[in-house]
Amino acid sequence: MRKLWHPACPHAAARKVVPTMPFMPVTDSMFLLVETREHPMHVGGLQLFKKPEDAGPDYLRDLRRKLLDSDNMRDVFRRRPARPVNTAGHIAWATDNDLELDYHFRHSALPQPGRIRELLELTGRWHGTLLDRHRPLWEIHLVEGLQDGRFAIYSKIHHALMDGVSALRHLQGTLSDDPADLDCPPPWGSRPKPDGGRDGKASPSILSTFGKTVNQLAGIAPAAMKVAREAFQEHTLTLPAQAPKTMLNVPIGGARRFAAQSWSLDRVRKVATAAGVSRNDVVLAMCSGALRDYLIEQNALPDAPLIAMVPVSLRRKDSGDAAGNNIGALLCNLATQLTDPAARLATINASMRNGKKLFSELTPLQTLLLSGINVAQLGVSPIPGFVNNTKPPFNLVISNVPGPRKQMYWNGASLDGIYPASVLLDGQALNITLTSNGDNLDFGVTGCRRSVPHLQRILTHLDTALAELEHAVSLGRS
Amino acid sequence: MRKLWHPACPHAAARKVVPTMPFMPVTDSMFLLVETREHPMHVGGLQLFKKPEDAGPDYLRDLRRKLLDSDNMRDVFRRRPARPVNTAGHIAWATDNDLELDYHFRHSALPQPGRIRELLELTGRWHGTLLDRHRPLWEIHLVEGLQDGRFAIYSKIHHALMDGVSALRHLQGTLSDDPADLDCPPPWGSRPKPDGGRDGKASPSILSTFGKTVNQLAGIAPAAMKVAREAFQEHTLTLPAQAPKTMLNVPIGGARRFAAQSWSLDRVRKVATAAGVSRNDVVLAMCSGALRDYLIEQNALPDAPLIAMVPVSLRRKDSGDAAGNNIGALLCNLATQLTDPAARLATINASMRNGKKLFSELTPLQTLLLSGINVAQLGVSPIPGFVNNTKPPFNLVISNVPGPRKQMYWNGASLDGIYPASVLLDGQALNITLTSNGDNLDFGVTGCRRSVPHLQRILTHLDTALAELEHAVSLGRS
Repeated sequence: MRKLWHPACPHAAARKVVPTMPFMPVTDSMFLLVETREHPMHVGGLQLFKKPEDAGPDYLRDLRRKLLDSDNMRDVFRRRPARPVNTAGHIAWATDNDLELDYHFRHSALPQPGRIRELLELTGRWHGTLLDRHRPLWEIHLVEGLQDGRFAIYSKIHHALMDGVSALRHLQGTLSDDPADLDCPPPWGSRPKPDGGRDGKASPSILSTFGKTVNQLAGIAPAAMKVAREAFQEHTLTLPAQAPKTMLNVPIGGARRFAAQSWSLDRVRKVATAAGVSRNDVVLAMCSGALRDYLIEQNALPDAPLIAMVPVSLRRKDSGDAAGNNIGALLCNLATQLTDPAARLATINASMRNGKKLFSELTPLQTLLLSGINVAQLGVSPIPGFVNNTKPPFNLVISNVPGPRKQMYWNGASLDGIYPASVLLDGQALNITLTSNGDNLDFGVTGCRRSVPHLQRILTHLDTALAELEHAVSLGRS
Repeated sequence: MRKLWHPACPHAAARKVVPTMPFMPVTDSMFLLVETREHPMHVGGLQLFKKPEDAGPDYLRDLRRKLLDSDNMRDVFRRRPARPVNTAGHIAWATDNDLELDYHFRHSALPQPGRIRELLELTGRWHGTLLDRHRPLWEIHLVEGLQDGRFAIYSKIHHALMDGVSALRHLQGTLSDDPADLDCPPPWGSRPKPDGGRDGKASPSILSTFGKTVNQLAGIAPAAMKVAREAFQEHTLTLPAQAPKTMLNVPIGGARRFAAQSWSLDRVRKVATAAGVSRNDVVLAMCSGALRDYLIEQNALPDAPLIAMVPVSLRRKDSGDAAGNNIGALLCNLATQLTDPAARLATINASMRNGKKLFSELTPLQTLLLSGINVAQLGVSPIPGFVNNTKPPFNLVISNVPGPRKQMYWNGASLDGIYPASVLLDGQALNITLTSNGDNLDFGVTGCRRSVPHLQRILTHLDTALAELEHAVSLGRS
């Protein structure tokens, strides 16, 4: 009898999958286990490029062809779950050594008239669909059809592979500060490493294997957990009240809206200098003003101030590089109940200073645990009714991720903007993530399409809020 | 204290959902219950239109605006599951009386160079993503950017709302045979009914409520089930062997490929007349030849012939209109092991005649039960391992759906093609559905993107197979 799948069948060979890593760390698999169609667990980024001056009509087609032909691919872009179906047990990674690049790298176009509005509409659509677990967990769109002649790249990668910060760092690693550098790697590739360093996950997980996690958790609980919980409570005590329940803290759907805009870093810097606060404080005050105006428009401003969860880097000066990512989660009082922009900025500054002071007094283990408590919330949010019946620990995440300091280029095209599109958790219908990019701050606003109507209005309000802060500060100085 | 959601909040009002239909019939909810991301349970259709001669540059924009402004919407397009999350219990429908039309009706564009190839690539992408259960279960894309100046509409609707035949009928109902008729309803609308007939589901379910189903099943089993099972076995006995396991009968992923092409109805009709067989026999012989060539290319042709499941209308002449849809599922021997096209056609013709004869001898209840047995397979296919460990009851579904007999128009644009995109079940990685359309037969080939590489080749092979049949028949006549 003839064999139905001959070993020499080209297709069978092409789909050869080598299971190399028997188990995912829990810190990775968690993002697969809690994912539902209402909560896609991927991070995204929208990059906007200006074509080189000498670009001909076939520029994009040639670029696409060149990228498809490249064999530069980071290992992490070959990983897929070994068993795509959700099981309650362990999840293993497999390496797909001959993935279908044409599936992952997509050619897309904007409908007429090809404004940023059409680009954001499409980005929202893409950001709201689930990645296919039978394949490596990423999609990248090369987008043509912008009326101003620019082009865009929308990237989407599962949180189990990279968190948002790592994904932005990875994208930055594909860029160059030299417009003449035409050998930039594809968005899924990497630059060759002279030291032959391991090319795996962008940033090592805090806890690296399932067994290790269990052992560590067993070893530290309950005594250390108690310490961490007390520290956490002390932190919340510095806040005026618990986070109020708002229209942003509702069960969410799977569809997304996305809005994006750049503001001059110099404007923010001048306000910060004049007010004697940090640039991030000014950014938070912009968000506060925008959220206040938006919620007033929606007739949904709570009496109590909104509380933002603000991830901050807590690397100690004495820790060196070995400490890896030390990210703490501060809770910041956004003072949205106050009408005066200067008073909001002052409250935000005080709240952030208190939080940082607390963290500076924690041991590294306590810091780790504090982060763990925030992450643990992920595990319970999919339980039906959980969101409806509990007060949110915070109202939204506002994240400020360091980006490139110089004007960057990718194969001669200059990077006009890099806008992060984030994960939304249940009960968290809005996320604001921004990144610095040369002379700009690039804001990406991700919202649940059902719960956050007229998301674009937040851009207008951010603009107003910055102008108000400039006005308030110059009034204060005169 | 201020209320967070004021009843007058425009957004809250806009999302008002009135639960009107407490329970879905099981025949509907089944399609929601068995749906996973590997098995999207929606049907689709791709319509290709030529713009009217006098269309200006703003034709599509004006058309889109007109459609968005229309308030003509069939009730079925307002239905969504009352509780979006899958529960093992009953599922109820809710009516969304103010849905976000902008979400469901999407404006899309093809990337350069805007060939049919780019259109099919996009269609495959859209057909492989899940509908959002928080909203009425449909999406319709208006597609611009075809290089030949035509435009397309891709429609996607959940099987729980309409089966594929009903969806095609519904779309036909929005067309006109008059190019001057500029009042055609939108793809989600309907023409006013002079008799004030109920505008609900396109075709009434065979079994209309959960309770009714249970009662009927309890009333007929086990005696009648035994009769039906015996009839079913007798039917399979007319086939030379059980369906072989092939590369098409594997667990499938969620991503899809789609291929589409039209063939002249006249060519098929001439072969049928010359060979003394039905037109559908010729269509099945085209598919048989194409599948044989494709499987040879993939080095995966089984020794035993492929078995197709072919839905056929079994309306009796004496039953009148009251019988509703009487669809039987014939199993057809495709004779793919034979090299001679004429011999394949003869075997197919004999197999179809045997099957129809068997069905003609069944009582209506037995026919219903036979269909039920085929549908019941849906319920077990998501069980892990089921597909791997059992022989498939058939290798693929080939469905021939009657379409419009005349050249049709939609708001002045002439319909060039209407290509069905079908549901794939687990273990069924390929589906061929075609519909008659004026002087053409429009074939839509839907495949699992992972399991069916080079799907477009099947179009080439269909073309070759038709030419071979023409040659074989004319040889036989000479």
